[in-house]
Amino acid sequence: MNIERIALDHGSGGEASQELVNDIFLSRLDNDFLRKLDDSAVVRLSGSNLAMTTDSYVVDPIFFPGGNIGSLAVHGTVNDLSMQGATPLYLTLGLILEEGLSMKDLTRIIDAVAEASQEAGINIIAGDTKVVPKGHMDKIFINTTGIGLIPDGVNVSSNNAKPGDIVIINGHIGDHGIAILTQREGLRFKTELVSDSSPLNSLVSSILKVNPEIHVLRDPTRGGVATALNEIAGHSGVGIHVFEDSLPISKPVLSASEILGLDPLYVANEGKCLVFVAREHAERVLRKMKKHPYGKNSRIIGEATIETPGRVLLKTRVGGTRILSMLTGEQLPRIC
Amino acid sequence: MNIERIALDHGSGGEASQELVNDIFLSRLDNDFLRKLDDSAVVRLSGSNLAMTTDSYVVDPIFFPGGNIGSLAVHGTVNDLSMQGATPLYLTLGLILEEGLSMKDLTRIIDAVAEASQEAGINIIAGDTKVVPKGHMDKIFINTTGIGLIPDGVNVSSNNAKPGDIVIINGHIGDHGIAILTQREGLRFKTELVSDSSPLNSLVSSILKVNPEIHVLRDPTRGGVATALNEIAGHSGVGIHVFEDSLPISKPVLSASEILGLDPLYVANEGKCLVFVAREHAERVLRKMKKHPYGKNSRIIGEATIETPGRVLLKTRVGGTRILSMLTGEQLPRIC
Repeated sequence: MNIERIALDHGSGGEASQELVNDIFLSRLDNDFLRKLDDSAVVRLSGSNLAMTTDSYVVDPIFFPGGNIGSLAVHGTVNDLSMQGATPLYLTLGLILEEGLSMKDLTRIIDAVAEASQEAGINIIAGDTKVVPKGHMDKIFINTTGIGLIPDGVNVSSNNAKPGDIVIINGHIGDHGIAILTQREGLRFKTELVSDSSPLNSLVSSILKVNPEIHVLRDPTRGGVATALNEIAGHSGVGIHVFEDSLPISKPVLSASEILGLDPLYVANEGKCLVFVAREHAERVLRKMKKHPYGKNSRIIGEATIETPGRVLLKTRVGGTRILSMLTGEQLPRIC
Repeated sequence: MNIERIALDHGSGGEASQELVNDIFLSRLDNDFLRKLDDSAVVRLSGSNLAMTTDSYVVDPIFFPGGNIGSLAVHGTVNDLSMQGATPLYLTLGLILEEGLSMKDLTRIIDAVAEASQEAGINIIAGDTKVVPKGHMDKIFINTTGIGLIPDGVNVSSNNAKPGDIVIINGHIGDHGIAILTQREGLRFKTELVSDSSPLNSLVSSILKVNPEIHVLRDPTRGGVATALNEIAGHSGVGIHVFEDSLPISKPVLSASEILGLDPLYVANEGKCLVFVAREHAERVLRKMKKHPYGKNSRIIGEATIETPGRVLLKTRVGGTRILSMLTGEQLPRIC
């Protein structure tokens, strides 16, 4: 790595993040668990498969339509466990607070943590609070780390996509990132843009009940759908074709994206899940997903193929094809 | 809680921290695991007792004699697991980086994480990196969260101190806090003040092998020995007498404390452990501790008693007695 200083795009979830992980972290901390670079690590413990994942949240603003940094911190970690096929059980909560943060704001955030935990059916079992002098950080940062158990027979991983797999998403793309950004920029639209932040464990467990042989589950957070698909294509050594026509994007997100000059395919989601499933089971899984409150707008958006391994191609409306690369640069710092 | 804003002492580990935990966190997130307020939470998982703990590190300066924020983040969490009698197994690493942090500094920190992990015999199995725009935070904050298994028959908890227990500490008091503070203030002493930051899992496992019926293990970090003893006295409903004469404090720490106006009993340690053990086993445990590299200066410093339950008393050199209360206020922000 021939860069001298940390830049914003090292936190983007895209190409620069990946470089940082490979060059600085993996080279020094390497082990069998870390190397997989899945949403959660999986360890064998007392005869069970335990998933463990960590995430820090630095979202700005801390309150936004559809949630706040507290609910986001629970959803994000619950979802990373879910994407490993794990049943989330326990979370820890690490708070870093700026001196002067109002108790009212803190209380609202902890209320959201409590509510989100309850909905997801998990317990916060340990916590830690640090306070940093005023001006040395921005309001509140949260770390949540979670553990969960992976049921026997479940084996989902970003390495498991197979040619022929159908790619399903559980709803509209880009809602979280665009909601945050319009708040931050003070933009107003007729229809309020609301984050999709939500816990996906119950949706995932309903899918796994239908078909425990789901190959990949991935939540397209930082870097968006395009970056998540690139990671899967790279880890699994398959090509992925995405049908532009079938991408579910709401009108408000589409028009806000145009105004802001953003591509929704690279915008963070916090309640979305990419599902790779063998073609013969796809319709059954899709039907199940549509019945779930967090899956009503589920759609098939693409397929995995032996062509172009490691690459993601967008099949455009007009019949053309363009390469969907990983996110490069950082369009949206502090989106989560 | 009739305070409107977060103040520095909410992160002190002392009285204000405890109030915050009780009034804001426990009231909203309450469950059987969290309520115990031990160094780690303990959950039953697949027939084993799993300990889990989280800590964020915001120490300033990030490099100090005896370590840096990376080694500290590993030692702190390894020690919190050890204080529960658990064998630390896996840690996660959550980094929040300020845009502009030099790669050289980051690399040095990750090298320290790697080295500390290796010494403690744990793996970093998952990680996360966020980057915050320059000026919105201070260099680097780290969260580590760890899990470990508690061997059958081991049951240490801050609730378990019994009247008659002997209190042992594994060495000198106040080294970490004083080392950080003299760095920060730019003070120079003839003898360099070095943090005691170190992993205590091997020391603890050697004690537990001698006597698995150790009642309490506690690392006196934020708030120091006095605050840790107050917590134990409160949780266990015993009184604790501390013999001032027997407190191991190095001369450099003693003189630096005098200059800085600090009481070493309230200063953070990062490689110290308070051990409560039944009187009849104390000498055997002490001998074992003294044989360990991190226990060479171990000493008996006090005893638990049925007198004055919930209170900690210092038996002074001149034969007097004074109450050692919990830390109030915040003398040392960003000490860990």
